[in-house]
Amino acid sequence: MLPMESNDTGLDYGRTSKMPVDLVIQGGTAITMVPGKQPIHNARVLIKKDRIIAIGPSSETPIPQGGSIETVDAKDAIIMPGLVNAHAHTAMTLFRGFADDLPLKEWLFERIFPAEANFLSPETVYRGALLGCIEMIASGTTCLADGYFFQDQTVRAVHESGLRGLVAQGIIDFPAPGVPDPKENIRMGQDFLEKWHHFSDRITPGLFCHSPVTCSAKTLRRSQKISQEFGVPLQIHLSETLTEVSEILEISGKRPAHYLDQLGLVNAHLIAAHGVHLDETELQCLHKNGAKLVHVPESNMKLASGIAPLDRITAIGLTTGLGTDGCASNNNLDLFGEMDTAAKLAKVSTRNPEALKAYRVLEMATLGGATALGLDKETGSLERGKKADIIVVDLKSPHLCPMFDPVSALVYSAGGADVKDVVVNGVPLMREKEFCSLDQDEIMAKVREISKRIHL
Amino acid sequence: MLPMESNDTGLDYGRTSKMPVDLVIQGGTAITMVPGKQPIHNARVLIKKDRIIAIGPSSETPIPQGGSIETVDAKDAIIMPGLVNAHAHTAMTLFRGFADDLPLKEWLFERIFPAEANFLSPETVYRGALLGCIEMIASGTTCLADGYFFQDQTVRAVHESGLRGLVAQGIIDFPAPGVPDPKENIRMGQDFLEKWHHFSDRITPGLFCHSPVTCSAKTLRRSQKISQEFGVPLQIHLSETLTEVSEILEISGKRPAHYLDQLGLVNAHLIAAHGVHLDETELQCLHKNGAKLVHVPESNMKLASGIAPLDRITAIGLTTGLGTDGCASNNNLDLFGEMDTAAKLAKVSTRNPEALKAYRVLEMATLGGATALGLDKETGSLERGKKADIIVVDLKSPHLCPMFDPVSALVYSAGGADVKDVVVNGVPLMREKEFCSLDQDEIMAKVREISKRIHL
Repeated sequence: MLPMESNDTGLDYGRTSKMPVDLVIQGGTAITMVPGKQPIHNARVLIKKDRIIAIGPSSETPIPQGGSIETVDAKDAIIMPGLVNAHAHTAMTLFRGFADDLPLKEWLFERIFPAEANFLSPETVYRGALLGCIEMIASGTTCLADGYFFQDQTVRAVHESGLRGLVAQGIIDFPAPGVPDPKENIRMGQDFLEKWHHFSDRITPGLFCHSPVTCSAKTLRRSQKISQEFGVPLQIHLSETLTEVSEILEISGKRPAHYLDQLGLVNAHLIAAHGVHLDETELQCLHKNGAKLVHVPESNMKLASGIAPLDRITAIGLTTGLGTDGCASNNNLDLFGEMDTAAKLAKVSTRNPEALKAYRVLEMATLGGATALGLDKETGSLERGKKADIIVVDLKSPHLCPMFDPVSALVYSAGGADVKDVVVNGVPLMREKEFCSLDQDEIMAKVREISKRIHL
Repeated sequence: MLPMESNDTGLDYGRTSKMPVDLVIQGGTAITMVPGKQPIHNARVLIKKDRIIAIGPSSETPIPQGGSIETVDAKDAIIMPGLVNAHAHTAMTLFRGFADDLPLKEWLFERIFPAEANFLSPETVYRGALLGCIEMIASGTTCLADGYFFQDQTVRAVHESGLRGLVAQGIIDFPAPGVPDPKENIRMGQDFLEKWHHFSDRITPGLFCHSPVTCSAKTLRRSQKISQEFGVPLQIHLSETLTEVSEILEISGKRPAHYLDQLGLVNAHLIAAHGVHLDETELQCLHKNGAKLVHVPESNMKLASGIAPLDRITAIGLTTGLGTDGCASNNNLDLFGEMDTAAKLAKVSTRNPEALKAYRVLEMATLGGATALGLDKETGSLERGKKADIIVVDLKSPHLCPMFDPVSALVYSAGGADVKDVVVNGVPLMREKEFCSLDQDEIMAKVREISKRIHL
């Protein structure tokens, strides 16, 4: 018998009982990431079209009658929100392992920039972005924030993959792939926003200013103005290296965050990635103005850029997402590994094992990232009414036994390879480790073919 | 037609051609870890009984005729030496996720030591060690250095698993699991060595002194003397925390490595784990005397102990292995993740992206670890005459595409879950991700059962 009023699972059966659901995920422990909510054991999630219509214990969440229902079996598994990769250059999978263990300037100016100039094209960006998308699906990411060039192609790849994302056109005051004349960069950014603004409810177009150093004050201000007109976030690399801090101090007399604030960029629509060398006044400035930060620990480690002060960032309460950066400086897109590293790096760098706890880092990789991207009304936690962006993490491998605490297991023991099912917008993108939306063999074959042409 | 003399693959067909081999691994790229040797494409490894009898390109390494041959297909894969986990407390899988995000003293004295005192027994150590062994097999470790209590049971588990290992009885001057009277610790250590000294060519028994702080000078000296009599390595936690350094300075007026040197422990049989706070004179002292170091980065990060100076350690040329530590401070036994973290942590902590390069960290996890354990004549690289301790890493997943450099892929992109086949001593322990020697379901069920009783 179905109760007729709303219960504590949030399901109004009176309205939904006559409508069969489209997808049911059931049997495991649900970590909802709803603040204050305890894990739900033997959970059931009901999905109608693109949204969660109920989540609760299976015993209290009966499946409405009628119609045919697809079921995801989450027995011996964790049901959780899909991860949000809040800083990626997805198509850079093309350059995975192309240049490692090099000083930053040599890496960027002698390897990556020339490789991008020589080998990026609409075709290669499309293929690289598809590879990044399938890698993200495989490792449990359901939403990404991307910035790169030839971004029509990244939109195309993200669209085809079924992922959710903020896809931004790169803005830089140098000749760039697809933007040979930097005088055209703003106009092309504007065209990009116009073209994709109403394309899909899964894809938000945006702009990505490369950095305060590589974009002039005028470029930064114009990018901000256009982003505001379209009501979309503006991404930027901020305070990634000490060199950047010195250069901005030299040209403006201010530290990078204050410089951006002076230009009017520090507001609730700013997504600042890295933030390695932000001092206390800069953190306060970002927080006061509602700006968002994205922590990118593995890339900062690999390029030897430094360690962001996550203890202070957390204490201040700055909204923080977690990102992998591109595959040329990581070299994978596995946010499970990134969570583990983020927690451990914060502990050792502060000599405080409580500096960044497991739940907080899981929050960064889910609801924190969604909030950073302005998508927290839609994704980042498992709640009735939100989009059904859900992953199922298999617990059958030895490294996930025993299980004293599922959050600890997710952060410190699990890896992307433990993800077995991925649902975005109510649509399964991976079922029992089989991809539903993309052709893995074809994607990998095409990128291997392209990689044979990449050399310097 | 078989050539009749030795060729550059090291195969003397004259002697072997009449003897069919037992196992062939073929088709992938072999990373041998033999110093100076380039990757071998489309490689073939021939194994007779427990040893490699030939390795080379398939075209130059024909399979001798006769008999039935088992073949491991390594197409689209990397063939490499099995990893050496040079610092583990294998049975501590029991406490995975039991205590995280706590200050070291609280973690150790209020959680781990009491849990060990209350819940370790021959039965639980056996079950926990089996779980650790199967987790190591799953993630490509073929050889381990273990130190713990109730070690007859760890010997039993390692023996049944098919792994190779140095299994050491813990020595500590406090009441310990299985050693209620610390006055008996040395005698019980000696009994352990006597019992297992001639047991198996895969298992070396040893002693593990807990630390310079928790073992008296007399205990350290006696442990060293007995280890020397049996010709086995002596393991110790050395310079893991600043507290340890202060305490040793206070009691001896010397820093920990010099204190051990004064006691006669610093020699070619010493395996010192952690080495976080070793100064330059201590590193030189260890190196001069041929002592071995084991780097344990993830545990040092999680417990906020500090960062070992890998740039200096590498520059000096100190023999270095890589270890995971126990699962209570990591929380898994995946050496692929450990390699990635080791390389990145060294870079960021020195602000030098060249501080620890991919090949060097792969060497630490293979031949370096084998050398640290005194097993480099037998394992750690793929060479004719060495034991066949070999793993096959599948390259079919998106995160391992494209492939500019297999060493980069192994260190920066791969995870333990990419390992598909594991062979130790010529015996397959995992084939196409199916375990051959151990019963995964039973092992996990038993540990889950035990874990229900573990609480404080």
